[in-house]
Amino acid sequence: MSVLIVGSTALDSIKTPKAENPKLLGGSASHAAVAASFFSPVNLVGVVGEDFPKMYLTLYKRHRIGLTGLQILPGKTFHWSGEYELNMNNRRTLLTELGVFETFSPTLPQSHQTASFVLLANIAPSLQMHVLTQMRRPKFVAADTMDLWLNIALPDLLKLLKRLDAFVLNDSEAHQLTKEDNVLNALKKIHQMGPRYVIVKKGSHGSLLSGPKGLFICPAYPLDKVVDPTGAGDSFVGGMMGYLASAKGGIEQNIRRAMVYGSVVASFCCEGFGLTRTTKVTRAQIENRVKELERLTRF
Amino acid sequence: MSVLIVGSTALDSIKTPKAENPKLLGGSASHAAVAASFFSPVNLVGVVGEDFPKMYLTLYKRHRIGLTGLQILPGKTFHWSGEYELNMNNRRTLLTELGVFETFSPTLPQSHQTASFVLLANIAPSLQMHVLTQMRRPKFVAADTMDLWLNIALPDLLKLLKRLDAFVLNDSEAHQLTKEDNVLNALKKIHQMGPRYVIVKKGSHGSLLSGPKGLFICPAYPLDKVVDPTGAGDSFVGGMMGYLASAKGGIEQNIRRAMVYGSVVASFCCEGFGLTRTTKVTRAQIENRVKELERLTRF
Repeated sequence: MSVLIVGSTALDSIKTPKAENPKLLGGSASHAAVAASFFSPVNLVGVVGEDFPKMYLTLYKRHRIGLTGLQILPGKTFHWSGEYELNMNNRRTLLTELGVFETFSPTLPQSHQTASFVLLANIAPSLQMHVLTQMRRPKFVAADTMDLWLNIALPDLLKLLKRLDAFVLNDSEAHQLTKEDNVLNALKKIHQMGPRYVIVKKGSHGSLLSGPKGLFICPAYPLDKVVDPTGAGDSFVGGMMGYLASAKGGIEQNIRRAMVYGSVVASFCCEGFGLTRTTKVTRAQIENRVKELERLTRF
Repeated sequence: MSVLIVGSTALDSIKTPKAENPKLLGGSASHAAVAASFFSPVNLVGVVGEDFPKMYLTLYKRHRIGLTGLQILPGKTFHWSGEYELNMNNRRTLLTELGVFETFSPTLPQSHQTASFVLLANIAPSLQMHVLTQMRRPKFVAADTMDLWLNIALPDLLKLLKRLDAFVLNDSEAHQLTKEDNVLNALKKIHQMGPRYVIVKKGSHGSLLSGPKGLFICPAYPLDKVVDPTGAGDSFVGGMMGYLASAKGGIEQNIRRAMVYGSVVASFCCEGFGLTRTTKVTRAQIENRVKELERLTRF
C-alpha cells in the first residue's frame, strides 16, 4: 500500500565543524518520503517556492514519489540554516525563512484522501490536523513533532494526539510534554493523551516503543562517523511507515521490524549531508544492516 | 568456578530528593560481590575498620561470600557520602573519608591466588595492579574504573590496561580517556591500550561490548522507578563475572548473556537504596527479567 506523507519541504543550509553545505534538499517530508520510498509507493504533500531547484524535483521522481500534492507557489522555498557542535549532538538554528510555508494550507487531491497509511511528518500541528481532517478512514496514522510546537502550539498538538494511532517524539520532548523524568512514566502519560503506540527516539541510543503489547527496545545502528544528523528522525519514521505499508499482516505483527528498518535508513541518513547519502542507498544495503542489527542484539 | 573480587568496601550515606540513608553497606566490591554471588562462589578482598557493623558481615556471609581476604583493621571504614539530583543522573560527592583504605595494601591469602576469574572492581588502579601481580595465571581478568582515576592516576591505569582481558567504563569516561566523541572510535583506541574486550556502560541506555568477534548492543532493563543508582555499575560487572564463571564453554560464547545477567542485577540494584533491594532478589526473579529482556529486544 502507499503512504501519504505531509510535512516540510525545505532548503537546508547546514554547517558542521568540518564543512558547510548551502541549500541542500531538506525538510521533514523530504527525508521521510525518500526513506519510505525504499519500501512502498509514496505521495508527498507540501509546498515549495518558484526558486525550488528542478534537480530536487527530479530526485523526488527518481524515488517514484508522487508529487500531485506538492504545490509550487510564487515566493521562496522554506529555508532553514543550522550549525552543529563538534559532538554532533547539539545544534543551533541560525536562520528560519518560512517563505511560501507561511500561508500553506494544503488541500488534498482526491486520490490522496483514501490513503491507508498517513505520516504527519514534523510540521505545525494545526497543518497536520488540517490534512488529517481531509482523510477518509485511514488505517494507520502516525505523527512526528519537535520542541518548537510544544512551546508555541501545545493546544493544537494535544488536539491532534487524540486522533493518532502512533506518536513519535524524542526523549527530551517526551520529558517536556509530560514533566516526567522517567521515560516509562512519560510513555504512560502520552498514551493517556490518545495514541496507542508511542515511540521515543533517543538518537544514537536507539528508540523505545510502547504499544498495546508492551515495550520494544529498538537498537540504533552503530556508526563510526556521523557527518550530519539532520533528518535522521524523519528518515526513521519515514522508513518505519514505508515498511509498515509494505508488510503483510497487522501493525502489531510488523511494527518492531518496521522500527528497525527505520533505524537503519536513519543510520544512512547520518552518513552524508542532507539526503546525499540516503538517496544513494540500495535496498540490499538496508537489508544487510538489518541483518547486522539482528546479530548485534542477539544473546 | 569462583570469582575473586577486589574493590572498595564502604559505608555509603546517600541523599536523594526523596530520602536520606546514612551508612548503608556500599563500595564497589560489596555491590559486585553480592551481584556475582547469584551465580558463582565469590571471594572478597577488601578492608574495613573496627566500626564496620557486624550485620554487614552477616549479610556477606548470607550470600556465601568468602571473607578470608577481608581485613578488619583498627580505624574507620571508608565512608562516602553523596547526593543525587531529581533526575537521578547527576550526583555530587559530599564527603569522602578514606579511613583504613588510606594505607590498604592487600596481601592475598594463598587460596585466592589461583582463582580463574578475577574482578578488579573500582578502586585505585595501583591497588588493582597490586592484587593482579599476586595472581597465578587467571583465566579471565576484568577491571572497572571511575573518572577519579583518569584524573589522578592515569599512568597507573594505562599500565593496568595492558594486563586485562576486559575493561569496563562508562561513556563519559571512554570519552575522557580517548578524547573521542564517537563511541566506536573510542572503543578502537581502548583496544589498542590492551584489553581485547571493552565494555562501555551507558546507564539506562544499556551497554556496548566490543570484542574479538565484533560488537554487542546490550539492553538495560527498563525501570519505572529508580530509587538509588549507586552501585549499579558495580552490580553490572559483578553479575557479569559471576555468570561467566558459572557458565560452561568459553568467554566468547557466554559474554553476551553474561552482560544481560549483569544488566538485570543492576536493574534490581537501582530499585532500592544501597544493597537493600539486591540482597532480597531471587535467582528466579533474575531469570524472569532476562527472559523479559529477550522478549523486549526481539524483532
